[in-house]
Amino acid sequence: MPELNDDPKQNVRHRIAALRQWMEKNGVAASIIANSDPHTNEYSAERWMGREWITGFHGSAGTVAVTAETAGLWTDSRYYLLADKALEDTGVELFRMNDQGVPKIEEWLAKELNEGQSVAVMGEETSLLNVETWTAALSGNGIEILTDQPFLNEIWKDRPAAPKGQIYPVPDEFAGFSVAEKIEQVREKMREQQVDTYLLGRTDESAWLLNFKGTDVQARTTTYCYTLVTLEDVRFFIDPEKVTAEHRDELQKQGVSLCDYDSVGDAASSLGEDARVLVVPFYLNGSLFRKLSHTKVNRGRAIVTDLKGRKNATEMKHLRECMLSDGAAIVKTYVWIYEQLKSGAPISEWRVSRKLEEMRGLQEDFAHVSFESIVGFNGNGALNHYTVTEDKDVDIHAEGVLLIDSGGVFMSGTTDTTRVIPLGEVHADHRKDYTLVFKCLVKLMRTKFPQGTTCAQLDGICREQMWQYGRTYKHGTGHGVGFGLEVHEGPQNISGIVTEKMEPEMLSTIEPGIYRPGEYGIRLENMVFTIEAESNQFGDFYQFENITFCPFSPELIDLDLLSDDELAWLNDYHRQVLERLTPHLEGREIEWLRNECREIVRQGT
Amino acid sequence: MPELNDDPKQNVRHRIAALRQWMEKNGVAASIIANSDPHTNEYSAERWMGREWITGFHGSAGTVAVTAETAGLWTDSRYYLLADKALEDTGVELFRMNDQGVPKIEEWLAKELNEGQSVAVMGEETSLLNVETWTAALSGNGIEILTDQPFLNEIWKDRPAAPKGQIYPVPDEFAGFSVAEKIEQVREKMREQQVDTYLLGRTDESAWLLNFKGTDVQARTTTYCYTLVTLEDVRFFIDPEKVTAEHRDELQKQGVSLCDYDSVGDAASSLGEDARVLVVPFYLNGSLFRKLSHTKVNRGRAIVTDLKGRKNATEMKHLRECMLSDGAAIVKTYVWIYEQLKSGAPISEWRVSRKLEEMRGLQEDFAHVSFESIVGFNGNGALNHYTVTEDKDVDIHAEGVLLIDSGGVFMSGTTDTTRVIPLGEVHADHRKDYTLVFKCLVKLMRTKFPQGTTCAQLDGICREQMWQYGRTYKHGTGHGVGFGLEVHEGPQNISGIVTEKMEPEMLSTIEPGIYRPGEYGIRLENMVFTIEAESNQFGDFYQFENITFCPFSPELIDLDLLSDDELAWLNDYHRQVLERLTPHLEGREIEWLRNECREIVRQGT
Repeated sequence: MPELNDDPKQNVRHRIAALRQWMEKNGVAASIIANSDPHTNEYSAERWMGREWITGFHGSAGTVAVTAETAGLWTDSRYYLLADKALEDTGVELFRMNDQGVPKIEEWLAKELNEGQSVAVMGEETSLLNVETWTAALSGNGIEILTDQPFLNEIWKDRPAAPKGQIYPVPDEFAGFSVAEKIEQVREKMREQQVDTYLLGRTDESAWLLNFKGTDVQARTTTYCYTLVTLEDVRFFIDPEKVTAEHRDELQKQGVSLCDYDSVGDAASSLGEDARVLVVPFYLNGSLFRKLSHTKVNRGRAIVTDLKGRKNATEMKHLRECMLSDGAAIVKTYVWIYEQLKSGAPISEWRVSRKLEEMRGLQEDFAHVSFESIVGFNGNGALNHYTVTEDKDVDIHAEGVLLIDSGGVFMSGTTDTTRVIPLGEVHADHRKDYTLVFKCLVKLMRTKFPQGTTCAQLDGICREQMWQYGRTYKHGTGHGVGFGLEVHEGPQNISGIVTEKMEPEMLSTIEPGIYRPGEYGIRLENMVFTIEAESNQFGDFYQFENITFCPFSPELIDLDLLSDDELAWLNDYHRQVLERLTPHLEGREIEWLRNECREIVRQGT
Repeated sequence: MPELNDDPKQNVRHRIAALRQWMEKNGVAASIIANSDPHTNEYSAERWMGREWITGFHGSAGTVAVTAETAGLWTDSRYYLLADKALEDTGVELFRMNDQGVPKIEEWLAKELNEGQSVAVMGEETSLLNVETWTAALSGNGIEILTDQPFLNEIWKDRPAAPKGQIYPVPDEFAGFSVAEKIEQVREKMREQQVDTYLLGRTDESAWLLNFKGTDVQARTTTYCYTLVTLEDVRFFIDPEKVTAEHRDELQKQGVSLCDYDSVGDAASSLGEDARVLVVPFYLNGSLFRKLSHTKVNRGRAIVTDLKGRKNATEMKHLRECMLSDGAAIVKTYVWIYEQLKSGAPISEWRVSRKLEEMRGLQEDFAHVSFESIVGFNGNGALNHYTVTEDKDVDIHAEGVLLIDSGGVFMSGTTDTTRVIPLGEVHADHRKDYTLVFKCLVKLMRTKFPQGTTCAQLDGICREQMWQYGRTYKHGTGHGVGFGLEVHEGPQNISGIVTEKMEPEMLSTIEPGIYRPGEYGIRLENMVFTIEAESNQFGDFYQFENITFCPFSPELIDLDLLSDDELAWLNDYHRQVLERLTPHLEGREIEWLRNECREIVRQGT
């Protein structure tokens, strides 16, 4: 069925029709395209954007299910508006995952299908966790999940090939440990978990273990690869063209042998029946798991994710420095924005995002942005994960507020900062919302908490500062950040439903927000390390070390809502910002920053 | 192997030896006795106290595992001290479940055992959840879990029979809905969950659905029974001797037929292959699940637990009234305590617990205490879940503080209140700890939170008030409470690892604490309903309605630690306590209460 025209909605309808044709021919009642590549990455190369291809919806999270008559897309609250627009006139219904009473994909399928029917799933592109959840939920209804029918390959005629981006090594002076040392750390944990074989499914796990960065996906360090670690050897499965001969030799010296990416399945099948294989259902795809099922499967924690989640002293040192240049890049962009506005020169969301990239690029070890900058003028700031594109650019005027959420990947770390700045006159509502978000941020930044504290507990402590004013936000409070790797990484994720513990040396963001659709969005985000606070008869207590130095906007602060403590914290923070960023700035930038960081004093005191 | 003497440690050693003999004879490498009866009740009849019998440890939570050479008991922090004492000289090692680095039972077994070995589990007395967790964890090590070898029946020669306590009906005027109405509510949810058969495993689920109370277990409303609900009929499996003819006829009229308790297995086996059976792995035992495994098993939420978790308007009305008499019973006990102390009359922890029961018994619809009162004088107050016994009674003197955690089961509800009162001179430390606990309690009682808030978020908000002072407690912040049923019930449980949502009409306790081993314990506990607070563009917000009216101790409040807001809350609370309890009290009780509830004013203001 050729694609007849350039109408994207028409394309979606044709593609779904082609899928239904395949389903009918193969006696399958429904099919699911999940939101992932073979490595359950959050952001994939185009080859694995099957859900985007078939629905026209390009949010970073979403899963589509299609039956003979109906179709649905499940996505979270960040993307409701975007998905609504994309799905219009496509016949695909939007299921708002964060709303009350909305069925899960498996619940919906249970109602749509009859006993004895089956659901085809792209096994290679679906996490084992999803496959098992759907199987468990639907088996009671007599509905089977098939993972061995890669239907997308048949209906997606011009499916893109896997990318060929080069990888490049990260020197030990940045990584903190050599590859050989990291392998030994992993093996020690393998012995503790009583496994002898560990297949790293997630690509950033390989990147951390083998000290490299990839370039397969825009604004990501991803390269498509697997690593198989046993107590005796380490095999790195990657397209050999991606690795220079020199790099290959260096890896060899560290005990790592290269194998072709496509041979990982055979390697899995060839493991002995006695192999005790660590399997992490969230990070491994369903097809690859099938090739391991003859072994002694041990489900356990992702060793590398746990190890890389706790930053080493070298990484911490580099990132602390990196954050100063990064803060300076943001300040330089602010000054540029205000000068453009003042001079009446054209300025737009897209231009601001380019400027941010240009300013970060001044730092020597800059690789690329850590994600497409979110630059949201007034109402656009209320769209979570909104990104402007050059062809749909939005002009910025001297009115209201501008939300900027951006970061970079450097050899010396990955950064992620959000601020909101006033562009013209601001109203009491702006100030109240900004100040409440500020209070949430400061509350969690200053919280002392005992060993064992979960992310959900911390999430509640942060949000409560705005709950008492009848406001909340639907996204998480923060996420883990990789060191020079992915801007989102586990194991921690500060959200009300995550019971992972917040451990020392973890690197996280704290980013509460308030969003008023059509008006504006406020989000303030700092990065923090978990460090030790005190030990006493009640146990060990931790706290957060702030590493983000970027001014808040005094014009947006409502002093009546701040306690004396919070005001003192703000003045102290601004003193530090001024002191630490000044060496990275020039004349008028310093002047501007000095004004932003002036001591704020209550009137009448 | 007869039990030769009255030495309890010797008995434990003999019983474990008998188990090992059985294991050797049957080729089993290890055995586990879990902490439950066939219904996964928290508190069991003596027949199902196998773990207590074999270890001599009588805490309410604990699981024992025995291998040929080693043995371990897993329990939580409430019982560390008690278990330590019980296990001394028994050869059973204590595993402190809440401590860092302590292996789980399945991790320990993985190390103790070799591939190809098997572990016997009392399938009928172990939840399906446990059976499945252990099976999943150990199958990778080639270790099998056997649930069909009821070894306890063989080695426990004088194992007690199942109890024969009568059940008695709860009138609709207390229950709010007739049995027939409740059955229809359940069926509606069954249709939503697309199941046609639902086996209620937990005994309090049957008690709620069929509007009765049981008397099989001391201080509990438990009766051993199952209920099987289909879309057509309802079968109540219970020893027929426990039900009067009149009650049986009444149940019949409501659409419920009685069957013998022991026939539930056959009923499960006889279900058709097409039956869509709702299974809740936490509430069903492993043996009974095997008898359902030929059906279409649907794992889902426990419908009755969800329904009974949200109290209806009749229940809420009754409980609000019940809490006033209950508060008065506590105040009467306080006055008695102070009068005894003043007159030099003997007074002890046991006598206080009897007095509490006597005072609660004055309320007409009193059934029994909701749990053995915790009356902890100074150091004993630091022992979580400590209960005094008559033969190990402890005298109380006019020094330090007394912790009292007690409640009753009435036709009009189940109550649970904790306070700490000063007996003599108190120190700055007492006051500081008491005030910090008070701040935690008040913080959560006053928190407004949006729909979707999880228990873990609320837990963090409560604890943070003492974390900032470097203190914490190891138990949960609160639990759900049954209406006239169990004092602990789900689905909610305010703890850092529980992501259940806090829903409207739920009844919960809030009970933070600070414990100083050997010195004293402070815990303050109120009961609250979740009610609506406001709805706005950010969604629906809830708050807690306090229903506990019992004074705090002004002598134990450190005003320097209280904000003006908190002090105003306290004064307002005390005004309400005085107003509401006075009608339930007499002369000198009112006089005492008036003094306790006097307005507290800061010096110099």
